[in-house]
Amino acid sequence: MDERAIAILGGTGDQGLGLALRFAKAGRPVVIGSRKLDRAVEAADKVRESVPGASVVGLENGDAAARAPIAILSVPFEHTAGTVKAIAERLAPGQVLVSMGVPLATALGDGATRLVGVWQGSCAELVAALAPQGVDVVSAFQNVSAHRLQELEHEVECDVVVSGPPAARKRVMALCALVPGLRAIDGGPLGNARIVEAVTALLIGMNLRYKVSEGIGIRFTGLPGA
Amino acid sequence: MDERAIAILGGTGDQGLGLALRFAKAGRPVVIGSRKLDRAVEAADKVRESVPGASVVGLENGDAAARAPIAILSVPFEHTAGTVKAIAERLAPGQVLVSMGVPLATALGDGATRLVGVWQGSCAELVAALAPQGVDVVSAFQNVSAHRLQELEHEVECDVVVSGPPAARKRVMALCALVPGLRAIDGGPLGNARIVEAVTALLIGMNLRYKVSEGIGIRFTGLPGA
Repeated sequence: MDERAIAILGGTGDQGLGLALRFAKAGRPVVIGSRKLDRAVEAADKVRESVPGASVVGLENGDAAARAPIAILSVPFEHTAGTVKAIAERLAPGQVLVSMGVPLATALGDGATRLVGVWQGSCAELVAALAPQGVDVVSAFQNVSAHRLQELEHEVECDVVVSGPPAARKRVMALCALVPGLRAIDGGPLGNARIVEAVTALLIGMNLRYKVSEGIGIRFTGLPGA
Repeated sequence: MDERAIAILGGTGDQGLGLALRFAKAGRPVVIGSRKLDRAVEAADKVRESVPGASVVGLENGDAAARAPIAILSVPFEHTAGTVKAIAERLAPGQVLVSMGVPLATALGDGATRLVGVWQGSCAELVAALAPQGVDVVSAFQNVSAHRLQELEHEVECDVVVSGPPAARKRVMALCALVPGLRAIDGGPLGNARIVEAVTALLIGMNLRYKVSEGIGIRFTGLPGA
């Protein structure tokens, strides 16, 4: 396992691919996972096209998860439980699994953006309930616009609230510093993911009301040293 | 009723007093309400001291509510239902009642800041359930630091997410423009107060983790014209 590698499971989606591009651009080895190998390979090719010389490989999710100390789950919420179960035996104690999913309610047909209830409280806590013992689950990246991530020539301009066990939280906060314009915020215990995930629904509604296709971001003011 | 007046019920508390100071400084007549008349009068005196020439009066909550087209509820969450019931018969159709309460869980003893569940979904929706017919309830100002509001020489530096019925929402958004550094964000339907109230709990936890006594604020990035 390459200690500098970052795995992105579901890295073929808009937001996962955006993170892959950014981490590759920062010079980190990137492992893109997908349920289907050919889609992962295709996404890896896309990254290499945008970031010449990038160290990026496409693998099935389980193989990808086994290849990096930090694996970021970037699958639609409805595939979260299935993906974690599918990769669980490929994860080892000490690895960090990052949840960036949001339990959005779809097909309500009233134009509103709402959340569905998750028994454990949030997508991140659902992931924590299913992750193998010794694997630390951290919540991050929910509020970052896929569009802004993919526009490599611009800064992302968004704060990332990172919640979870302290040591693992710090490791994920350090990843944010790799992306220009992203700033990590110490979001405390994993349960705060309930709030951070909900903010995504608020932002999606704001994007519609303000007609901002690039995605509205969030910043915190008054932090020390900011 | 003075059409330019703004009533602040529970205007003797830190955040209510902060709003009273800011609106008075902007030249608007302010009516401070309290359960106890003498405390309201005392708070009104404080405002006049900080803002010479301010038009500000202290009254009991019911009398205060009847004196302004927009009344802001700035009472602790546990007094919300009681206050709305107490003033209900003093409100008239067409008035706007603003909820800025947050159902914070206290005395958990574990150092975490959490919310208690509200049957209606949020403090704002609880207020809406109890308000008389024809009175529009709007959610706003939850995330604004009392400390920053009271420091009249500094800008507040915070966005205010305003949710509720469209016409009433616009009237409350216009109030934000009276305070330097506050920016109103169209927060859509009242139900989004669930998210905005939760963000307050997140901010309180961040204030503790980052040791920011002035209170951390929130800004949205990428809005048109910003």
